[in-house]
Amino acid sequence: MLFMDVHNHLPEGATAGDVAEAHAADVRTQDQYGVKYLNYWVDDHAGKVFCLVEAPDAEAAHRVHREAHGLVADEIYPVTQG
Amino acid sequence: MLFMDVHNHLPEGATAGDVAEAHAADVRTQDQYGVKYLNYWVDDHAGKVFCLVEAPDAEAAHRVHREAHGLVADEIYPVTQG
Repeated sequence: MLFMDVHNHLPEGATAGDVAEAHAADVRTQDQYGVKYLNYWVDDHAGKVFCLVEAPDAEAAHRVHREAHGLVADEIYPVTQG
Repeated sequence: MLFMDVHNHLPEGATAGDVAEAHAADVRTQDQYGVKYLNYWVDDHAGKVFCLVEAPDAEAAHRVHREAHGLVADEIYPVTQG
């Protein structure tokens, strides 16, 4: 299933570079859970991140974020791509 | 510039097909404003839509939605793609 997750508040001072490192950690962690983080978009001024992810369910996607870097998304939606 | 816009409340009963029609109307409208709606993701159960859009500024992106179908996004963020 395809999901879009939304992080509403990056940690104070986090940069796009920090998000890139977190994404790399997701990629190292995801295979064991059948998860694939496909792409992400960052607004570091607003502290917002959108992650597009293929996962068996929302909890599996959250688990990868939790184990990889601890920054679990605030919201997650099952989506179809237009 | 690249933006992610977020629609938080699709009109009651709107389906993924309705969103596809709205997107087609965006595509017919966008050129005159230098805007390009690139992709979108829909959760029709939650009434949520995420649109990825190239635009000279946020207002130009909103203008296309407003003229094409009237459904202006609730939020819009300048983003960098990871």
